[in-house]
Amino acid sequence: MRDLDPQGVLDEALAQMATTPDPRLHEIMAAAVRHLHGFAREVQLKPDEWLAGIAFLTAVGQACTPYRQEFILLSDVLGLSRLVNLMHDAEGREAAGTETSLLGPFFRDKAPEFPPGGSIAVHDTAGQEITIFGQVTDAAGRPVPGAEIDIWQTNAAGLYDLQANDASVMDLRGRFRTDAEGRYHLRTVRPIGYSIPMDGPVGRLVHQQNRHGMRPAHIHVLVAAPGFRELVTALYFADDPNIGSDTVFGVSASLVVDAAMGVPGSPRPDLPGIRYDFRLSRRAAGETGGRVGADPSQIMPAAE
Amino acid sequence: MRDLDPQGVLDEALAQMATTPDPRLHEIMAAAVRHLHGFAREVQLKPDEWLAGIAFLTAVGQACTPYRQEFILLSDVLGLSRLVNLMHDAEGREAAGTETSLLGPFFRDKAPEFPPGGSIAVHDTAGQEITIFGQVTDAAGRPVPGAEIDIWQTNAAGLYDLQANDASVMDLRGRFRTDAEGRYHLRTVRPIGYSIPMDGPVGRLVHQQNRHGMRPAHIHVLVAAPGFRELVTALYFADDPNIGSDTVFGVSASLVVDAAMGVPGSPRPDLPGIRYDFRLSRRAAGETGGRVGADPSQIMPAAE
Repeated sequence: MRDLDPQGVLDEALAQMATTPDPRLHEIMAAAVRHLHGFAREVQLKPDEWLAGIAFLTAVGQACTPYRQEFILLSDVLGLSRLVNLMHDAEGREAAGTETSLLGPFFRDKAPEFPPGGSIAVHDTAGQEITIFGQVTDAAGRPVPGAEIDIWQTNAAGLYDLQANDASVMDLRGRFRTDAEGRYHLRTVRPIGYSIPMDGPVGRLVHQQNRHGMRPAHIHVLVAAPGFRELVTALYFADDPNIGSDTVFGVSASLVVDAAMGVPGSPRPDLPGIRYDFRLSRRAAGETGGRVGADPSQIMPAAE
Repeated sequence: MRDLDPQGVLDEALAQMATTPDPRLHEIMAAAVRHLHGFAREVQLKPDEWLAGIAFLTAVGQACTPYRQEFILLSDVLGLSRLVNLMHDAEGREAAGTETSLLGPFFRDKAPEFPPGGSIAVHDTAGQEITIFGQVTDAAGRPVPGAEIDIWQTNAAGLYDLQANDASVMDLRGRFRTDAEGRYHLRTVRPIGYSIPMDGPVGRLVHQQNRHGMRPAHIHVLVAAPGFRELVTALYFADDPNIGSDTVFGVSASLVVDAAMGVPGSPRPDLPGIRYDFRLSRRAAGETGGRVGADPSQIMPAAE
């Protein structure tokens, strides 16, 4: 028994957790507690600030519904989601493999299948039509035939199908397969950038930080083929005004594209085109391939 | 535009927050993000672990009700509440002043007033009767007459009045005033230790850590007098089996007491007695005196 000082509280907290049977839970919680205390000591957190923090986290938790995951949004705007994504990437991606990006909350399983050259803009066709084409290869550049390319995006108003329509409609998303040479091509309309939800506690924080809260226009891509690590990425449009300040930090230079006329090899020279070749990394033995942000439905509060 | 690495994501997140107009919010959030990223990088947080963390925090937020603050409980079991308490203490307490402890969630305003020697065990009188007496002084030992001493505790079953009865009952809590020499004396029954709520996500975490989740027996004390910093503290019983492992880290050596027969000066030599002198620190100019954990009702979700 001693009189506690800040270091003493930390030592006691770590000592109490030392009995944790699961070594990984122990490692994670010990680090979490050290960093949490380090944060509070560094800023000399005051009681009323502590209470404001408790109130904020409570509001974030209470804002979660079966259709909204406000804690993932918080993780996104603090750069944590992207960091976890990058670390996962660094661990398993081959050096020459395509960079990954955030899955985001709008992925849906079993999007409609299209033949090569089909357009995913079925219901909502407003906007500039474009074509995207290229090749899926392994990291050494060898073609991957039969790879599945799943793409999804917003409409010309910045809304995903789930936001623009009832849940029965699947639009502006679709699946394609590469041919014998690993080639694919598809059509869509230009997506536009959009704001993260600003009507909850995370939006209020972003507003208090004078941030714009916008994501630049992008198209989500998930490429899967047997034996390869699932590639979760996105292509970002170079001319979006927020291309350099994505509020969830998803953009990397290698994922920035431009839709232009006269792209060599375009199967649709009549449309602005983007050529993008996806390079898949081999799946390591025993790799489970968890998606960052995948399946948030698993952790949603149950519908009432 | 560059390809991001972990340091790059952190840099970009900090750069986006640099526009925050409130300098203190900026300081706190920048430190929070640095430590959050530091934590994730140190443990190399995996996507499925990240998702488990999101799910945990969501469950903590959803467990909050008008009558339960699960995020404060999380802060408590991680030692954060106690740390904020200690830092607040170190900032304003005079060196000779009594140490503080956690206010906890069971403080109630306007507890019944009692004359000197009265017993706060009115409805629920089970347990060993004891007396507590002593003097309230300033840090130099000069008596503080007319100080208000507010005390509250569990019954012999380990329950506070709010847990044992409906809210209309105030029991095992009361207010006393010091006399012209700063002296006080009162009677109560021995409280017993109790478990934090183990039926929520925080309880499940504590269980996964093989921690007992118990607080040692204690009596909460709040001492207030004009011109002095409000003293929020508690007295802990030396013979409680968990005196050395309080699950919320409230115990300090200087706050440990023993109820014994024959304590010199006891006004009730027929009862086991505790002598405890409280030394108040002067209030600094402009000090607001926020209580750690005070008024959680302010941040509770509204009743439905």
